[in-house]
Amino acid sequence: MSTSPSREVEIDPAHAALLFIDVQNYAARRDGGEYQGLSGSVLEERYGFFFRTLHDSALPNMRRLQQACRLGRIEVLYTVIESLTRDGRDRSLDYKISGFNVPRGSWDARVLDEIAPVADEIVIPKTSSSVFISTNIDYVLRNLGVRSLMLAGILTDQCVDSTARDACDLGYLVTIVTDSCATHSRDRHDWSLRNNSGYARQRTTSDIVAEIERLTGRRV
Amino acid sequence: MSTSPSREVEIDPAHAALLFIDVQNYAARRDGGEYQGLSGSVLEERYGFFFRTLHDSALPNMRRLQQACRLGRIEVLYTVIESLTRDGRDRSLDYKISGFNVPRGSWDARVLDEIAPVADEIVIPKTSSSVFISTNIDYVLRNLGVRSLMLAGILTDQCVDSTARDACDLGYLVTIVTDSCATHSRDRHDWSLRNNSGYARQRTTSDIVAEIERLTGRRV
Amino acid sequence: MSTSPSREVEIDPAHAALLFIDVQNYAARRDGGEYQGLSGSVLEERYGFFFRTLHDSALPNMRRLQQACRLGRIEVLYTVIESLTRDGRDRSLDYKISGFNVPRGSWDARVLDEIAPVADEIVIPKTSSSVFISTNIDYVLRNLGVRSLMLAGILTDQCVDSTARDACDLGYLVTIVTDSCATHSRDRHDWSLRNNSGYARQRTTSDIVAEIERLTGRRV
Amino acid sequence: MSTSPSREVEIDPAHAALLFIDVQNYAARRDGGEYQGLSGSVLEERYGFFFRTLHDSALPNMRRLQQACRLGRIEVLYTVIESLTRDGRDRSLDYKISGFNVPRGSWDARVLDEIAPVADEIVIPKTSSSVFISTNIDYVLRNLGVRSLMLAGILTDQCVDSTARDACDLGYLVTIVTDSCATHSRDRHDWSLRNNSGYARQRTTSDIVAEIERLTGRRV
Repeated sequence: MSTSPSREVEIDPAHAALLFIDVQNYAARRDGGEYQGLSGSVLEERYGFFFRTLHDSALPNMRRLQQACRLGRIEVLYTVIESLTRDGRDRSLDYKISGFNVPRGSWDARVLDEIAPVADEIVIPKTSSSVFISTNIDYVLRNLGVRSLMLAGILTDQCVDSTARDACDLGYLVTIVTDSCATHSRDRHDWSLRNNSGYARQRTTSDIVAEIERLTGRRV
Repeated sequence: MSTSPSREVEIDPAHAALLFIDVQNYAARRDGGEYQGLSGSVLEERYGFFFRTLHDSALPNMRRLQQACRLGRIEVLYTVIESLTRDGRDRSLDYKISGFNVPRGSWDARVLDEIAPVADEIVIPKTSSSVFISTNIDYVLRNLGVRSLMLAGILTDQCVDSTARDACDLGYLVTIVTDSCATHSRDRHDWSLRNNSGYARQRTTSDIVAEIERLTGRRV
Repeated sequence: MSTSPSREVEIDPAHAALLFIDVQNYAARRDGGEYQGLSGSVLEERYGFFFRTLHDSALPNMRRLQQACRLGRIEVLYTVIESLTRDGRDRSLDYKISGFNVPRGSWDARVLDEIAPVADEIVIPKTSSSVFISTNIDYVLRNLGVRSLMLAGILTDQCVDSTARDACDLGYLVTIVTDSCATHSRDRHDWSLRNNSGYARQRTTSDIVAEIERLTGRRV
Repeated sequence: MSTSPSREVEIDPAHAALLFIDVQNYAARRDGGEYQGLSGSVLEERYGFFFRTLHDSALPNMRRLQQACRLGRIEVLYTVIESLTRDGRDRSLDYKISGFNVPRGSWDARVLDEIAPVADEIVIPKTSSSVFISTNIDYVLRNLGVRSLMLAGILTDQCVDSTARDACDLGYLVTIVTDSCATHSRDRHDWSLRNNSGYARQRTTSDIVAEIERLTGRRV
């Protein structure tokens, strides 16, 4: 690299991918496994902001983003919390401790209907925070020729953040699509984006949709 | 490790696993995808020894081994050549060059009926020779608490050999179950075992079955 | 794991290690390479809190922690930002973009004198945020038999945080030694610890020193 | 990849590297640590062919290859068996079992004088057979932009072979420079090359030198 490289570069559509993180029934629906047993008032108190954000903006944005990538011929992948087994014995120690178990093939493991995978899209199950640590996604992305990686999903300050840092460390040009991510409070969302602004380019869904249109010459 | 460690140790059943490598329709049946288009005489000339070995000894041994592990409560896992996609775009460059494509969900990808997985057993798809290089199997085995890894399957001198070396490098106590492996010629089988005798303990299926019985106190 | 595992467990001294992260001239001294060219007033404004914290508490705590581990026969390791080359061509894309280059063998690469490595201690150079992503530390820790990993160093909310998450994902029982870490503001320090409390046990230096004494039966 | 890719492609000099494997005092000199305690007659009987091959052809070829790469501005790297510690506690279980210990900084760890590294060349210590399994070389090569990887060194059928397979799995276009490799017998050398011809392109030193000249337009 003779010229000074920068993180503030547009995606290279021919070598780009969008990764949805943990946008699944387990965590993204009030009736998902993560919230089992919680009363309506606890749900509202702890997660009210989160579900409203998902419903009002983050999910609509994710759908728009997904459509733009598909029309722009950009690879769309998904990672979900899902064990390789029903009994979860293959989970990381961390998930065993935390009590997360999303059995293989369960409803909880499925990507939300709103952005359901189609055709031959790839879904990678994981049992850790960072998909780069506990799966072969780096190998897969390398084989797909991906250099620009866009991230969307949940939670902004947990799995999305871990994934952004690790992807960045591995040489991907990472873009966090800010309003296609959500977490439990605005403060947590904002703080996370402030904290990893040194790792990843940050753009809104509208920014990225416009970028894809401009770069591919397609209406998306 | 204060005492001198050795490779010639028996498995620790509570921390052991058996991994079947590539024992799938694609490669282990005359009508498998790998042999598509070959005439009967070419099949016999190049692969006659291989299929006879599978039929006469290797597969019966694999069944015996699998049964012993199941009865001995030892984890049985499988890895198969299988892309994450139907079009194979996620394959390694090597597989693209070699022309191997086993589409996700295809008949070619399925483990042979003779040793079909049951219940909650784990099957890990791969698109490379060594499952340790291109999948998260090390992470999975670590989570399962595996220290002793037994290998069976095909080909003795290709994927089994690569896997044995890499597992050994990663600290697993590796046992190659010699007569539960097969390759295209006796010479290739023998030479491979001679070449990696420094990496892995080598035992016959009968040896291992007896070992499991002795160590678990169960009839297997 | 039949009983419910927990993160709130004491270290296992025979299988524990302390890892100092980035406590090196480059980043931990006012005359370090990271601050080159900055005026005294800018240094004070942006990093005043950081250097005061290092001087007043974090470094003295790190020394205490290091001594306790050494006397308790617990492995002490270090990771530093350091390229494998003088020209930095081996750095991650991220470091090239960020402008971080700490040449091999430079003064900037050296661990601070205050906690200088002795004897046969291990120093692992890295050119990314998480030492787990860009080095073979997981392989090394596995070979050392480490299960409990204690983290100290800088910055609490950047490299320490990334490392904690990734170590946790990989099955280590992680303890962040809170007052042996430092970052640029109290808010950033506190927020980070709040954010990864689900990943890692958090203890003060005094807590850990007392724990080591109790568990090893040694005066440390 | 729309056109059919091939393994039989020339290197891309701007994205190539030469890796010398284990060409160090420990293993490549009669007075190296690996042979300590062996009588002259045992040395001759077991390793006579090996040392003669090294002396007569393999080492001269390696020097020629190294020079050609340096003049052709192609990255030259080295991996050696070397622990991170003097006591070898960081070694893989396999090396502990095998008894290999090459202490950090020892004479045994040093690359042979005949092809000593110069300037800012990279030497990566390892304690396993495949440098891809136990070091961060994949991360380093990625950062260097390497796509074509040439391998030379020892032993053809052990570490060179493991490395070739793993590099191939990871998407590198691998060339084994056949007469710049050596092992204990001609049979072992030939058999190994026959066995991994499906993984790696195989060329002689003269072939590669000519290729570098042709592709770089430089006299090398």
